[in-house]
Amino acid sequence: MRVLIAGMDGYLGWALAQYLTARGHEVAGIDRFLRREWVAEIGSDSAIPIYSMAERLIAFEERFGTRPDFRVGDLLDYDFVYRFLAEFQPDAIVHLGEMPSAPYSMIDAHHAVWTQTNNVMGTLNMVFAMRDTCPNAHLVKLGTMGEYGTPNVDIPEGFFEIEYRGRKDRLPFPRQAGSFYHWSKVHDSNNIMFACKIWGLRSTDIMQGVVFGTQIDEMGDDPRLRTRLDFDQAFGTAVNRFCCSAVIGHPLTLFGRGHQKRGFLPLRDSMQCLTLAIENPPEAGEYRVFNQFEEVYDVTELALKVQKVGRELGLDVEVRNIENPRAELDEHYYNPDHEHLLNLGYQPTHDVEAELQIMLRDLMAHKDRINHFRDVLIPDIRWDGTRRKSAFLQELSPAR
Amino acid sequence: MRVLIAGMDGYLGWALAQYLTARGHEVAGIDRFLRREWVAEIGSDSAIPIYSMAERLIAFEERFGTRPDFRVGDLLDYDFVYRFLAEFQPDAIVHLGEMPSAPYSMIDAHHAVWTQTNNVMGTLNMVFAMRDTCPNAHLVKLGTMGEYGTPNVDIPEGFFEIEYRGRKDRLPFPRQAGSFYHWSKVHDSNNIMFACKIWGLRSTDIMQGVVFGTQIDEMGDDPRLRTRLDFDQAFGTAVNRFCCSAVIGHPLTLFGRGHQKRGFLPLRDSMQCLTLAIENPPEAGEYRVFNQFEEVYDVTELALKVQKVGRELGLDVEVRNIENPRAELDEHYYNPDHEHLLNLGYQPTHDVEAELQIMLRDLMAHKDRINHFRDVLIPDIRWDGTRRKSAFLQELSPAR
Repeated sequence: MRVLIAGMDGYLGWALAQYLTARGHEVAGIDRFLRREWVAEIGSDSAIPIYSMAERLIAFEERFGTRPDFRVGDLLDYDFVYRFLAEFQPDAIVHLGEMPSAPYSMIDAHHAVWTQTNNVMGTLNMVFAMRDTCPNAHLVKLGTMGEYGTPNVDIPEGFFEIEYRGRKDRLPFPRQAGSFYHWSKVHDSNNIMFACKIWGLRSTDIMQGVVFGTQIDEMGDDPRLRTRLDFDQAFGTAVNRFCCSAVIGHPLTLFGRGHQKRGFLPLRDSMQCLTLAIENPPEAGEYRVFNQFEEVYDVTELALKVQKVGRELGLDVEVRNIENPRAELDEHYYNPDHEHLLNLGYQPTHDVEAELQIMLRDLMAHKDRINHFRDVLIPDIRWDGTRRKSAFLQELSPAR
Repeated sequence: MRVLIAGMDGYLGWALAQYLTARGHEVAGIDRFLRREWVAEIGSDSAIPIYSMAERLIAFEERFGTRPDFRVGDLLDYDFVYRFLAEFQPDAIVHLGEMPSAPYSMIDAHHAVWTQTNNVMGTLNMVFAMRDTCPNAHLVKLGTMGEYGTPNVDIPEGFFEIEYRGRKDRLPFPRQAGSFYHWSKVHDSNNIMFACKIWGLRSTDIMQGVVFGTQIDEMGDDPRLRTRLDFDQAFGTAVNRFCCSAVIGHPLTLFGRGHQKRGFLPLRDSMQCLTLAIENPPEAGEYRVFNQFEEVYDVTELALKVQKVGRELGLDVEVRNIENPRAELDEHYYNPDHEHLLNLGYQPTHDVEAELQIMLRDLMAHKDRINHFRDVLIPDIRWDGTRRKSAFLQELSPAR
């Protein structure tokens, strides 16, 4: 299939280009390298060194015998999007081209407005351009499990049948996101659902859990094919940040009581799931939602797993609680469905510890590099708009 | 109270400035006159002549002995919003400063992106500026009943208690809007709900029905104090368009079968309701939703009322069905709650025919002016992206 990846230079995008090419798909890509800028703005860098797109593409061609049709461009530039779609005529578009950080979106009015403008308007341009150039293409859109928040009821996959005052309907499940970034994804979901309804477009909206992992097998040993891995307060996600902390002897930090429950999945599972969505498109006019994660974990549970595996590798790993800079519950009910991908054949990687071992070994090679940016591990971006480093909470930290 | 009206030059804003001043409130206002531009872009003009803001303010001061602190500015300009709020220190902000047309938002990608950028980002700037300058102020935000769409169950006021798989929660009622404009209001609702939750702001989100009417008593006889009234396909709403059609002998046009049900209210009721919201603010941190309309009507029923009142005034009024340019159901269940405003003391104007008579008399004075723009009464902006005038549907038009 012909697959266009928006955000091909990113953590998922660069891995996916390789994964899909290895499976025989024809890949094209868009990026304007904003992720590199944002992480620099936060004062950090990828833990795993990454190369320029020019160098990446040379290595890509050496390994896979072909290279993606890659173009530098902005999804906010409608003419660029329109022309590329008209020319490439994708069967599927995987839209990973958004600003993905909750803390970054909460810095101030400017960052919130920028985040929602970039994410929502880029996606609007995408659906209009699809309507006018490739209305049968399948939009695989990266949303987030964070769109749902933490309601006190089970979380279905996008829609639920309810009875209310004696009448029944199938309705979108209400979203209760926790940052202006997460809300930008909700706005996207709403706009895409509407575009499918009125124009007969087809889309899979991926409510993805938190991804962790340093590699997929397709990358081989070439450092130029490695994907980025962030560990700063804004772009680093929980397990990736834990692993980077572990290799430099920095405490793994839990926010507040640390009992937030989230869906998690390894990078290799994310690739598998996105590919299942691509290879099994919905019908024309169908807007479907996949909750994409391997399993729900308590954040403390994952920190203790990193501690255990780290100690096996000889690392001195401490787990500590810090003030929560976010406005969120740190103890709550959480029971999301995730049947759709399993029904399509998703084989989850259940061995999280094996994955953590690979990650820690990969990251130990870059210990000095991570150590240089260790300041970015403790958050100072707070949901109330202030910038103050979170303090350690002595009384809460786990006994183990 | 000190009330800042964003969008003070508009249909509701100009009337509200007078209504609130007459009640002794101190009013300030913002506008950048975009409504005048948009209507010109559609090729139309207000049926009732309107004056420049400079002339309006002179008449305002003559009548009320005071004039609003009015400033030309853009809600997308954060520094402008921040400075004005910091200086004026409003008790309430009535946010009417958005692009209000569904068809305008559906013209093409550019108009959709512009609409969502203008509406959503202006509101984001507003809540950030409130947080940082006047966190105790009350944001009265104009949403629309169109946010809900037409679900097959009753529509509560914003939130509902549900039981799902044996567990209970109070959740936001799912929205299913019908245009990118209506979705922009949903995005706003979501962002504001979140701002109240994390920052303790207070807001009333007004899900307003379709407003009709040419005047409120406070305007007196001075033509400079009259508010605009649009009748074009994009900015004219149903009853206002029907009345303008009636006075020039143009058929009143129903979309499709014409059995869309919507909540409607006269302009004077809108003023009364907005004022009730302003004078009865919510608690800090409270985000409440008011469904604001007098009663639910079938659109055909209203067209026939205009026909009846028009005939009493000697007008030759025909009602006809045309192709529906929108993607919407023209026969559906519709039963929204509207208790919150009644509980605050809202006295609905139940005599719609008396209101229609006032409107038709007002508009008959501007018959030639309306006739000049009669081409804009038949829509050509379609939800599928094409521009083709809707044809009359001979077989459907009502017998009466």
